[in-house]
Amino acid sequence: MRIVLAPDSFKGSLSAPQVCTALARGLRQVMPDAEIVVRPMADGGEGTLDAVLAAAPAGARRETARVTGAGGEPVDAAYGVLAHDGTTTAIIEAAQVVGITDQAAMRVSVRARSTQGLGELLRHLLDRGIRRFVVGLGGSSTNDGGSGLLAALGAELVDGRGKRIAPTPDGLAALARIAMRDVDARLAHCDIRILSDVNNPLTGTLGATAIFGPQKGVQPDEVAAIDATLAAFARIARDAFGRDVADRPGAGAAGGLGFAFQLLGATMQSGAEVVAEQVGLDAALADAQWALTGEGRSDRQTLLAKAPYVVARHAAKHGVPVTLVSGAVDHGALDALGAHFAGCFGLADGPMDLAACIANAAALLEARAANLARLVLAHPAVRSPRSGSIGAAPGEHGWQPVE
Amino acid sequence: MRIVLAPDSFKGSLSAPQVCTALARGLRQVMPDAEIVVRPMADGGEGTLDAVLAAAPAGARRETARVTGAGGEPVDAAYGVLAHDGTTTAIIEAAQVVGITDQAAMRVSVRARSTQGLGELLRHLLDRGIRRFVVGLGGSSTNDGGSGLLAALGAELVDGRGKRIAPTPDGLAALARIAMRDVDARLAHCDIRILSDVNNPLTGTLGATAIFGPQKGVQPDEVAAIDATLAAFARIARDAFGRDVADRPGAGAAGGLGFAFQLLGATMQSGAEVVAEQVGLDAALADAQWALTGEGRSDRQTLLAKAPYVVARHAAKHGVPVTLVSGAVDHGALDALGAHFAGCFGLADGPMDLAACIANAAALLEARAANLARLVLAHPAVRSPRSGSIGAAPGEHGWQPVE
Repeated sequence: MRIVLAPDSFKGSLSAPQVCTALARGLRQVMPDAEIVVRPMADGGEGTLDAVLAAAPAGARRETARVTGAGGEPVDAAYGVLAHDGTTTAIIEAAQVVGITDQAAMRVSVRARSTQGLGELLRHLLDRGIRRFVVGLGGSSTNDGGSGLLAALGAELVDGRGKRIAPTPDGLAALARIAMRDVDARLAHCDIRILSDVNNPLTGTLGATAIFGPQKGVQPDEVAAIDATLAAFARIARDAFGRDVADRPGAGAAGGLGFAFQLLGATMQSGAEVVAEQVGLDAALADAQWALTGEGRSDRQTLLAKAPYVVARHAAKHGVPVTLVSGAVDHGALDALGAHFAGCFGLADGPMDLAACIANAAALLEARAANLARLVLAHPAVRSPRSGSIGAAPGEHGWQPVE
Repeated sequence: MRIVLAPDSFKGSLSAPQVCTALARGLRQVMPDAEIVVRPMADGGEGTLDAVLAAAPAGARRETARVTGAGGEPVDAAYGVLAHDGTTTAIIEAAQVVGITDQAAMRVSVRARSTQGLGELLRHLLDRGIRRFVVGLGGSSTNDGGSGLLAALGAELVDGRGKRIAPTPDGLAALARIAMRDVDARLAHCDIRILSDVNNPLTGTLGATAIFGPQKGVQPDEVAAIDATLAAFARIARDAFGRDVADRPGAGAAGGLGFAFQLLGATMQSGAEVVAEQVGLDAALADAQWALTGEGRSDRQTLLAKAPYVVARHAAKHGVPVTLVSGAVDHGALDALGAHFAGCFGLADGPMDLAACIANAAALLEARAANLARLVLAHPAVRSPRSGSIGAAPGEHGWQPVE
């Protein structure tokens, strides 16, 4: 039996590769001869780089570059380089440069944090001849509207007296004009895909500052002023770049990095879909009989292009049933989830609090996988990619054998 | 697909028939055409009567008799009457007469509670010509060594001055002698099977008073005296009845009812095994492809002849995989349980406290069954009673197809 493991991370508990390890241990207890194919997933946020590199072909490399962190300190940011269809692609995780887990940056006020390091990283990669970029936006500590990125790529942000301003929320308050003369011309020849799982616009009540600012340290009484600063920046940038993207879905991702990248012509994509493509999920599923996916918590949002749903959609193309094993599954969403998964299961063995679930997640996952395998083995699939499932009624359950 | 549902009750939450209803609802969501065969189980305690009657052939009746409750008040005790192999059998549940859930009796001190009502019920059934009894012992409020049962059946318990004593812990303290002259002679022609899931002796550190007394209201400083009273009663009874049964397994069941019944020649049996026989579990399993069982909480004790284990053993004879769905499953017991069940699952969807599990048990069970069914349907069994499982490796998993 060939089984594909394609979970997202269980945030706050286990990385996606750790989830795979625990699931595989449980399966092997019961199915020692199963062929287990590991494809850790991600949604464009933290873990995206690791997921893509884990499944990348030989020749893929994890490298680092020293750039400026969000708070001004140097950081050694990891990124990936892989050949894809004959072209070199760089896999960038914004969180590696301006991550909210960077303790040094978090000691600096959010009003003084900048994404300029991400621009430096892009410049470094342009210098190496790379023109194709996949950028995961999740997990940033910044709220600069992506002004740091643009400044580091040559956009000159100046105040009313023509003096350069800092590309930060505080600095942007004095912005009068953006000079485009020195913007890196190589950007025009790039294919940049940005990955996010949020659709928020840059500003307004659903904008980056109002929705994501507070968790980055924006004080309640600062929200309106910073939002107005970003709105003014957006108008000036629109005129400078000739693109009106502030209200596009995802412009508000990563404190406005979604806006800045779209100013540069980047296309916004579903993080999980792009990760599925990068990790070769379809090829892994092609001859599989079963797949397991999961995430920290599953609910109706899961069906909005989260990694487990993307795995289910791809598996359906190949007629492979996918079982969902998450830290928790919202009871009210089970009917909706049930249409897409061959069973949805939480981790708890019984009454158990969140801390115990998190602390024992690996052991619980292993046990859950073993018990699911026992049930599957008792009801063995007799199917092949050619014959489809014998006795199954796949149409009712969301997956279709490929005939 | 034929599916047998054979759970025990989830104590404190759902009766076994209610568990069956919830499981069946979940299965039908996913497998609307499945043939679902319901065989609620019990272990000799509360629910035994309902389980046996639920699966009994036509002609089985639920009746009641007014007898004396444990605290002296009248109770209308339910019992079952069914024809079995051409003989009428009465199914009695001690808890129906002297149950720990009888609020009126619980207001009377345990030192003054008596099992005499159970003797009255037996006498009533003897008068009706019944000579075959199955008596479930679980869930009693009494600790009288079964002296009330014996007294109501004609044993005369007297003190040093020849005066009748009360058949209670307090009364027995003055016991000097048991006169056998009036003991019901019809008992010699009876087949009495008593059902229990405890093996404790009548007295001592593992005896009825020390182990089960406290939960019935025996105070810590009363344990030694009451235990000594029962020990003295046992010596006198041994000489009177000519049977030495105080240390037999189960003599300490139901506050010593196990002792008194064995004095009368009753045979002690595994409650779940007898219930399995009475409900026709083997016939139900004969053509089944899957079975579900469960209980409130499963742990290593489950493998000591609890209902789910008995179901697993019977199912193994027929090559039917059995999945365990319990309120909670002890994580440390999963490996041991895994050898007997095609998957073990608790109810929780995620972090959840005991009260929430209990309050939502039916909905959680329904959802769990639906999700298990989705997984099974994705991996359909292609088997029949003749061919066994195709592709299964049943030897590894504790069940064997019958060939």
